[in-house]
Amino acid sequence: MELARSPLAPAHTQDCPAIAGARIATTNSGIRYKGRDDLLLLELAPGSTVAGVFTRSLASSAPVDWCRKALKGGKVRAIVVNAGNANAFTGKAGDRIVADTAKAAAKALKCKPAEVFVASTGVIGQPFDATKITGKLGGLIGVLDGGAWGKAAAAIMTTDTFAKTATRTAKIGPAMVTINGIAKGSGMIAPDMATMLAFVATDAALPAKVLQALLSKANEQSFNCTTVDGDTSTSDTLILAATGQAKGQPKIASAGDKRLDGFRRALDDLMRDLAIQVVRDGEGAEKFVQIKLTGAASDKAAKAIALAIANSPLVKTAIAGQDANWGRIVMAVGKAGQKADRDKLKIRIGGTLVATRGAVAPGYDEGPVAAHMKGRDIDIEVDVGVGKGKATVWTCDLTHGYIRINGDYRS
Amino acid sequence: MELARSPLAPAHTQDCPAIAGARIATTNSGIRYKGRDDLLLLELAPGSTVAGVFTRSLASSAPVDWCRKALKGGKVRAIVVNAGNANAFTGKAGDRIVADTAKAAAKALKCKPAEVFVASTGVIGQPFDATKITGKLGGLIGVLDGGAWGKAAAAIMTTDTFAKTATRTAKIGPAMVTINGIAKGSGMIAPDMATMLAFVATDAALPAKVLQALLSKANEQSFNCTTVDGDTSTSDTLILAATGQAKGQPKIASAGDKRLDGFRRALDDLMRDLAIQVVRDGEGAEKFVQIKLTGAASDKAAKAIALAIANSPLVKTAIAGQDANWGRIVMAVGKAGQKADRDKLKIRIGGTLVATRGAVAPGYDEGPVAAHMKGRDIDIEVDVGVGKGKATVWTCDLTHGYIRINGDYRS
Repeated sequence: MELARSPLAPAHTQDCPAIAGARIATTNSGIRYKGRDDLLLLELAPGSTVAGVFTRSLASSAPVDWCRKALKGGKVRAIVVNAGNANAFTGKAGDRIVADTAKAAAKALKCKPAEVFVASTGVIGQPFDATKITGKLGGLIGVLDGGAWGKAAAAIMTTDTFAKTATRTAKIGPAMVTINGIAKGSGMIAPDMATMLAFVATDAALPAKVLQALLSKANEQSFNCTTVDGDTSTSDTLILAATGQAKGQPKIASAGDKRLDGFRRALDDLMRDLAIQVVRDGEGAEKFVQIKLTGAASDKAAKAIALAIANSPLVKTAIAGQDANWGRIVMAVGKAGQKADRDKLKIRIGGTLVATRGAVAPGYDEGPVAAHMKGRDIDIEVDVGVGKGKATVWTCDLTHGYIRINGDYRS
Repeated sequence: MELARSPLAPAHTQDCPAIAGARIATTNSGIRYKGRDDLLLLELAPGSTVAGVFTRSLASSAPVDWCRKALKGGKVRAIVVNAGNANAFTGKAGDRIVADTAKAAAKALKCKPAEVFVASTGVIGQPFDATKITGKLGGLIGVLDGGAWGKAAAAIMTTDTFAKTATRTAKIGPAMVTINGIAKGSGMIAPDMATMLAFVATDAALPAKVLQALLSKANEQSFNCTTVDGDTSTSDTLILAATGQAKGQPKIASAGDKRLDGFRRALDDLMRDLAIQVVRDGEGAEKFVQIKLTGAASDKAAKAIALAIANSPLVKTAIAGQDANWGRIVMAVGKAGQKADRDKLKIRIGGTLVATRGAVAPGYDEGPVAAHMKGRDIDIEVDVGVGKGKATVWTCDLTHGYIRINGDYRS
């Protein structure tokens, strides 16, 4: 199935500069795809630190299991990613593929296998021949290139309709550091490709512990605030590597260090950028939806309610139909199971108040709301009237395109 | 939008016999529909007991709020139901509509307002003129008829494509009692019609407390085991009334009384029948899906995992595409957040073992599974290998029909 570029894709791809200590090579593995690169080696200089966040799925893939263990060492020399096969639910054979990959990369780069991170995305349940990866590593090491971030983003795509990159800079003390990131989202051409993968690298010098704290926090407010269809992948992987090669950096020992404020903002911003790009390439998406939830009992409650709205098929189909159906938003708030005061509930669509005090807003004029619903970017604001908790989440509409991509075939 | 009869509809509608002490009348209210009855009065003889189960939504409708209070009295003389307007999120105006309805019916039947139960299904957020109901009650009382269960089932439909009835008999001691039930499911022609309503009546003589215990238990294993799209209505209502007019019944004081075994089985069976009919009329449904989950840590965990599978858009679209995509079932088990052993997970589709011990089943032959997926009734069995908890849930596939019904219009 050939998919057209998402109508929600950004006008320009962000060009990422080289990052000292990070180099890239891509090639075709022969695992699944023909005529395109689908194997990525991201090499990090000796001494690079690492942080990671992985799927909460209890059926996590073999590469995820490997990365979780490797993360304990806090060091990274390589990230190896293949697209086309998720190496999930592949039993002991799957574990062997990952171990073989890590060992081969470690041998070639003269590091420990636990410094090699592996990620896979694609079909579930089909072990593949590990030599399709290990046999390519030598060649990849020969062509490593600091500027190939666009090629890296393209190599990890499955049926993403555009490559996702983001870059930011920040000062840590007197030093200027760069952060680059790539991500892939959910696109399907075959069963079970729905993995979110993201890899971020920086030349900042930060201990693994600090890196992990920054990454976990940024993740909560970016990727963990997005949903396409509420189905959690077996393979979701987000890795942040820091080469420490930017010049003139002060030593940082704590994530709370004031001198990290700019870096933290830049990282948060880059992660949000990538997360939103993933949603903008959601399967069959025609509209991008931002849901701002306020007035909840806690930030956690706000996020739960916002995600209940974002995951509701009735809300998502109404948006696809350009219908400002606030009754379905009320329904979703109700089913979220979090504290909300029906008689203080306020709903705004495109900035217009549509419902308040347990009923339709007095003098509600559907005109501007109907016009807003015809656009590509839909803004929904909901205040549930019980506290100060707030959250913003991002999703897309549910269209015939989603059904076509996921249901219109026989494997 | 005119909807064709669901391809999953039962071949025959069950004819319900009269139940001593229960009478029915229907008419057109003028609230929304034209050319069909959309207002139901179910009258119960003085002394009838009642039990009820209602939506867990925190944005529950005005009628649901009323019924929850009325239920404390344990007595029922009338159930008034209208289709076309849910009287949900209608503020104080909505509360007044319900109170006016109950008072008018109580006056006409010479009972207390708290013995009148009200249910509404249809559009959210639009208060309507209560006299459209209260003005019709006198006329309805004049034409009450014990045999009109089919008409009752038809009058509560929104865009259901068939009327849902069920009847069973059972012995309590030497007495033969009858149970009749009607239900409506989720169909949409306008925003926010997705309410599940079910009304069950019997001529058994049972105290309200006993009735409630039997109903709550039966509900857990019937309606609460079904899902069409995972969106909980503001108005879900299930009411069981017992007129006590069957002859020769022994006095029953406890739900655990052995003499209730037959009645309990009949009630459970009737409720499952109605619940399955609701799923078989799910929006856009082309396939009926039964998911049997075994080997979980508890029955509750089993139900959570089964519902995660049943609500997964990726599983549902795969079934629509006649694709035995067990990788997506693995994904759904993983995201359920309940204990499961990946290496002991077993998946059967149409009775054929497709996955076991963390990988595809040895010698797996796709032939019989592909044939099963072409049928209307899909059987999925999953054993998660950690305990003895089990549950069975029912759902339908996710098709272009669902998007068409819920997304292809502008209000």
